[in-house]
Amino acid sequence: MVNRQVVLAAHPQGVPVASDFRLVEAAVPVAGPGQMVVRNLYLSLEAAIRGWLDGTANYFEPIVLGGAIRGPSIGRVESSRLAGFEPGDLIFGLHHWEDYSLSDANTVLLRKLTPNPLLPLSWYAGALGGSGQTAYVGLHRIGAIKPGDTVLVSAAAGATGSIACQIAAIEGCRVVGIVGADEKAEVVRETLGADTVINYRKEPDLAGALVRACPEGVNVYFDNVGGTTLDAALMAMAQGGRIVGCGMISDYNNAASPTPLYNLWQVVERQLSLQGFLLYSYLDEVPAASAALEAWLSAGRLTVLENVTEGLSAAGSAYSAMMAGTTIGKNIVCVDQT
Amino acid sequence: MVNRQVVLAAHPQGVPVASDFRLVEAAVPVAGPGQMVVRNLYLSLEAAIRGWLDGTANYFEPIVLGGAIRGPSIGRVESSRLAGFEPGDLIFGLHHWEDYSLSDANTVLLRKLTPNPLLPLSWYAGALGGSGQTAYVGLHRIGAIKPGDTVLVSAAAGATGSIACQIAAIEGCRVVGIVGADEKAEVVRETLGADTVINYRKEPDLAGALVRACPEGVNVYFDNVGGTTLDAALMAMAQGGRIVGCGMISDYNNAASPTPLYNLWQVVERQLSLQGFLLYSYLDEVPAASAALEAWLSAGRLTVLENVTEGLSAAGSAYSAMMAGTTIGKNIVCVDQT
Repeated sequence: MVNRQVVLAAHPQGVPVASDFRLVEAAVPVAGPGQMVVRNLYLSLEAAIRGWLDGTANYFEPIVLGGAIRGPSIGRVESSRLAGFEPGDLIFGLHHWEDYSLSDANTVLLRKLTPNPLLPLSWYAGALGGSGQTAYVGLHRIGAIKPGDTVLVSAAAGATGSIACQIAAIEGCRVVGIVGADEKAEVVRETLGADTVINYRKEPDLAGALVRACPEGVNVYFDNVGGTTLDAALMAMAQGGRIVGCGMISDYNNAASPTPLYNLWQVVERQLSLQGFLLYSYLDEVPAASAALEAWLSAGRLTVLENVTEGLSAAGSAYSAMMAGTTIGKNIVCVDQT
Repeated sequence: MVNRQVVLAAHPQGVPVASDFRLVEAAVPVAGPGQMVVRNLYLSLEAAIRGWLDGTANYFEPIVLGGAIRGPSIGRVESSRLAGFEPGDLIFGLHHWEDYSLSDANTVLLRKLTPNPLLPLSWYAGALGGSGQTAYVGLHRIGAIKPGDTVLVSAAAGATGSIACQIAAIEGCRVVGIVGADEKAEVVRETLGADTVINYRKEPDLAGALVRACPEGVNVYFDNVGGTTLDAALMAMAQGGRIVGCGMISDYNNAASPTPLYNLWQVVERQLSLQGFLLYSYLDEVPAASAALEAWLSAGRLTVLENVTEGLSAAGSAYSAMMAGTTIGKNIVCVDQT
């Protein structure tokens, strides 16, 4: 029995490509005291991983060449010497892209899952995981959305954006989405309930397009991308508008040369707030978010957009496609059970 | 009897110069129904005026060539047909740079002054006016300062910054000031209670200097300037730090070509909040601010830095010097009583 691992073959130059990753075989780990061995079932592909691939410090230590890619996963406990966890338990945590991971009490994001059997397990990596919770907490706690608000969402067809659009619509807001492809625009308009969708690649004057789409100004901008999109959105905000800074993915592929912004003076001019936001600082809000999301999902009021890639060996190419912006919805790798 | 007025002779190119202004003579106005005639005593020179000189719309309509410069002043009522105002009353309001102004119920910022006779009247245009109130409300309400915080203040020798430094020190914060001249640095250190002062003109790596000056990170940045200083400060913020966006004066002289910022991704990385702030949206907080400021001033705990220019004819050159950044403290023009 071997433990297949996806390791870093090369530091990506800009957008990752499949050859930046390599599949290797290692020994299956054995649980020491306080540890457990987890069989990974679903890998959650996340933009934050990109920052670990450059070999420079980020939130976490960088991933060295030849090192296993770190990322959140849903797994099943195989063997456990960790109190409170039994074989067969389903868990979520920050592991590696591999068949079997060692996990312990210090595993980041570790929690036991008690999934609703009527809902797909993979949803707990997306709509019922960090993506959905980030959308819910960001819109409510940071954005303070209220009925009638105009809510602008960037990366509107993405894992978090697709949930944010739907939550805002459910809460009675007017939703305007920003995407990078006509195919995504159609999904955001037809499936996610957005009133208006803008394909930024087709708008030489994005700020002007946003002003036309939001004639009374944007009350809440749920920003997943930063960069030139944020710069344009600053020109479309209403007085006193709130920007939820949820991600700045536009610079994740090029951390060494961030995009210049020119319109920050609007923050004073329009009395805006821009609040950076990472879910782990608001963990006390997660139970309420999870309950609301599960209720909406169970009632069919929220649609989950998932892009599932089959097989651990395809994880690198799946991640590369995601970071190139060509996918729709939450990106998941279903680990093939060899 | 004539009414001398300072009018706009030319739209400034970058930093205003004295020849952008011209003194003319007009008729003394006569109060119609609901109006009063005010004898201007002190003009409050403010950065916001710069935006009106370009001939393009800003918060207010632009000032046309030949038009009187608009600005806040302290004046004495000469004659009144406005209910509630009597000759001899002292008032504050947005008037023009002239001997006599017409004022009415729609005058922006209009309020009757009941000055403390033990304090100089001119202070009501600065430390006891918008500058001091902005510092107080910005630090407390927006910045939520608490004892032990590291508070960074830009334009620390300016009208608002000089009060902000002192309030933060009184409240038990560690104060770090940013200025543009060694002469200012000395004042901020010796008189205003700052622990450390940085002359940004002498720091090729301002971000590095700020990180060294604030090894535990900046909890609250009271930002009067925006631009490259804000960009550098973003790299020195503590996790969860708060930026009070009080002004972006660095771009006021060049509104058409704002300074690019590169470090906005830190807003997410460090979970910062950046809140733009204009005093007029927090008028309900002004009475408490005024009371605290007057108590500190009366007790000698706050020092007022004032740069008083004598004579209406010198208003244009005084304003030009202020916008060139060569002055210290609140800039006031004492209107000579001809």
